[in-house]
Amino acid sequence: MRKGQRTRQDILGQAVALASEYGLEGLTIGTLAGRLGMSKSGLFAHFGSREDLQLATLKNARERFERFVFSPALAAPRGLPRLRGFFQRWVAWADDPEIPGGCVILGATTEYDDRPGPVRDALVASQQDLRKALARAVELAVAEGHLGRDTVPEQFAFELFAIVFAAHHDRRLFKDPAAVNRATTAFEALIARNAPRGSEQSTAATGRSVPQFELFSSGDQA
Amino acid sequence: MRKGQRTRQDILGQAVALASEYGLEGLTIGTLAGRLGMSKSGLFAHFGSREDLQLATLKNARERFERFVFSPALAAPRGLPRLRGFFQRWVAWADDPEIPGGCVILGATTEYDDRPGPVRDALVASQQDLRKALARAVELAVAEGHLGRDTVPEQFAFELFAIVFAAHHDRRLFKDPAAVNRATTAFEALIARNAPRGSEQSTAATGRSVPQFELFSSGDQA
Repeated sequence: MRKGQRTRQDILGQAVALASEYGLEGLTIGTLAGRLGMSKSGLFAHFGSREDLQLATLKNARERFERFVFSPALAAPRGLPRLRGFFQRWVAWADDPEIPGGCVILGATTEYDDRPGPVRDALVASQQDLRKALARAVELAVAEGHLGRDTVPEQFAFELFAIVFAAHHDRRLFKDPAAVNRATTAFEALIARNAPRGSEQSTAATGRSVPQFELFSSGDQA
Repeated sequence: MRKGQRTRQDILGQAVALASEYGLEGLTIGTLAGRLGMSKSGLFAHFGSREDLQLATLKNARERFERFVFSPALAAPRGLPRLRGFFQRWVAWADDPEIPGGCVILGATTEYDDRPGPVRDALVASQQDLRKALARAVELAVAEGHLGRDTVPEQFAFELFAIVFAAHHDRRLFKDPAAVNRATTAFEALIARNAPRGSEQSTAATGRSVPQFELFSSGDQA
């Protein structure tokens, strides 16, 4: 990594922390320069505008999420072990010290839901990619015979998202230590509701062909 | 209502709309005065500080929520009809024209989760009151025999909150018309999972004494 790139990464680390506390909307060239002890003109050399900075920060937050949540989950065998790994890492993400003020992306969803523009577009794309990746992981669990064939992947992904969303809320706003257990109970109930029926389980045990797609598209992992 | 009070209510209506779009943190005496075509000193006559304005706006948003969601739900018989009414109104709340930018309270949760102070304290109290009211409504549904006796009210309330949270997200960020159906499917599954078992249903049918508490404490309804 060249020096310029390293500096940019350091800046983005601070930008993510700042956006985590004050929102992506609270992130300005001025406040970031102040925190870094840099001049505003020095920062402008890296980011041409406030919007550029916001977009780069969102992208960086997403990359952190992929490192912290996606990649460790991929180490687990596909199907339910991977889905459970994903869930556990995602819930734990609320306590990651790199984002002292909570998930930047989650915070941005209420900030930008009604502000048209490139930041909102990037956020929608990011949240939809995540939901699609979850639905794909659910499809894989169906193919593995870990979930029933009448499972609706988009519905499952919606509910998984809902549970993690609420866990982050209770963890961060209420500082409630019970949040993780509540979320786990809800998630296991979601799995149980979509469990394969008796006849399907035997099919799974005899082994069927399994699609070759992975939890995430290759584009997401680049 | 005296003229001063009426003016204050008009101001708060605009303040809620503004906070709905730009966040409670985006609400300043200056921006609100600009939108109302009032002088800043005129606004200061009603709210002594920005924090006063934020607290009054949060309180007003909560009163609107009670009028839009709580009160109509109370018209339904207690137990499951009331819980379902509550759920339907709450999901519909995301589209209320009084809050063009979505729920002020939900938006504030990610803004203030890590900012100590009176606004955060008021928000935590408000969210905890809501969760307790939900748990109480669940207890009532258990007492009515509509839900099983092993239902954990706090768990049920957590999951109900999660589902509505995600519905608002999908409705507002994705503009996804399927959000309401997804949420309803999830909510009905939550009810089914907590349904009374066969033996309990007969107990309910023979009638048991029912506690005299209502969906919400009398304090909430004052």
